[in-house]
Amino acid sequence: MLHLAAPTRESWLGEATADPETLLLDHAHCEKKAAGTALNLMFRYADQPFLQRPLSELAREELEHFELVMDVLRDRGWAFRKLRAGGYGARLMEGVRRGEPQRLLDTLLVCALIEARSCERMKLLSEGFLDTDPELAELYRSLLASEARHFSLYTDLAAQRFGRDAVKERLPVLAAHEAAVLAGLAEEDRPMRMHS
Amino acid sequence: MLHLAAPTRESWLGEATADPETLLLDHAHCEKKAAGTALNLMFRYADQPFLQRPLSELAREELEHFELVMDVLRDRGWAFRKLRAGGYGARLMEGVRRGEPQRLLDTLLVCALIEARSCERMKLLSEGFLDTDPELAELYRSLLASEARHFSLYTDLAAQRFGRDAVKERLPVLAAHEAAVLAGLAEEDRPMRMHS
Repeated sequence: MLHLAAPTRESWLGEATADPETLLLDHAHCEKKAAGTALNLMFRYADQPFLQRPLSELAREELEHFELVMDVLRDRGWAFRKLRAGGYGARLMEGVRRGEPQRLLDTLLVCALIEARSCERMKLLSEGFLDTDPELAELYRSLLASEARHFSLYTDLAAQRFGRDAVKERLPVLAAHEAAVLAGLAEEDRPMRMHS
Repeated sequence: MLHLAAPTRESWLGEATADPETLLLDHAHCEKKAAGTALNLMFRYADQPFLQRPLSELAREELEHFELVMDVLRDRGWAFRKLRAGGYGARLMEGVRRGEPQRLLDTLLVCALIEARSCERMKLLSEGFLDTDPELAELYRSLLASEARHFSLYTDLAAQRFGRDAVKERLPVLAAHEAAVLAGLAEEDRPMRMHS
């Protein structure tokens, strides 16, 4: 699915649906971080005009989703607060090669893979919450299409700059890295997160 | 106007309208930076829930304006490119006290003053371009109300957290600093910018 190298481990969905407060809280942080990442790329690559508008539109959409999740938290009386990062993002970024232009290619593809994993997990959540929490089931059903669209946006930007062949060659390598990062986190018995 | 300690020097409008390409380019960067600043505050003060939604909405609006200015640049065949910063933002931030909670109060008020100055200058531009470039006159007329609204948003957030009295006491001090920064930049004969 969406070029992921491995599906989510079976135990994750049960952990996630058992603690919707932490899940939503982490989800809110994820949307904010996704907007921050897009904006950081707009600053770091200010000399690459082709990135500017797509990433600006993407950042706006991530912020809209952030506000949407904040609504759900508020409606449930769950306070927004800091949450220790799960380690997924930081470890994923270790797979990005230093030096340009490889760094840009890898960063775009890592961003694409995060969106792909979010899409896969939101699909699981939309099904897992169906009987127990229809509101959350509907929330995740409504969001997963955006995540798939963002995956395509990031891979399209990479292809536009580096060509389809470069994407086809590098994406599976980074997808394998992404799956290995998740497997490593699971072994360490980390707290439940959207990407644990 | 909007608590600014001094009006814009008379020579600025002539410099700005004489070089609309640089003006628009710098304006695009300003909108992006405004979004980045709002998002940075959302990360730095993740433990302050009251800031999250207003700053998220503000960041989205700044990004919309960024895209709007990018449209104008594209329509005129002016490429988006890097531009050396004019020094205004960095020097303004030197007026922010270290240590919390003063740092938060000052940062919110400095952000408010940047919006106020933008509002004042966009009013000047909307009048200065009226005969020579009606499209830009209309662009700046349409944007200046948002800048005034953003000034109020930042001062309201400061008042919500620190009280109206604290804002009344600190805002004039920072406004005097802002005016001094602009006067200093003018003396150094810096290149024309939205905030030069």
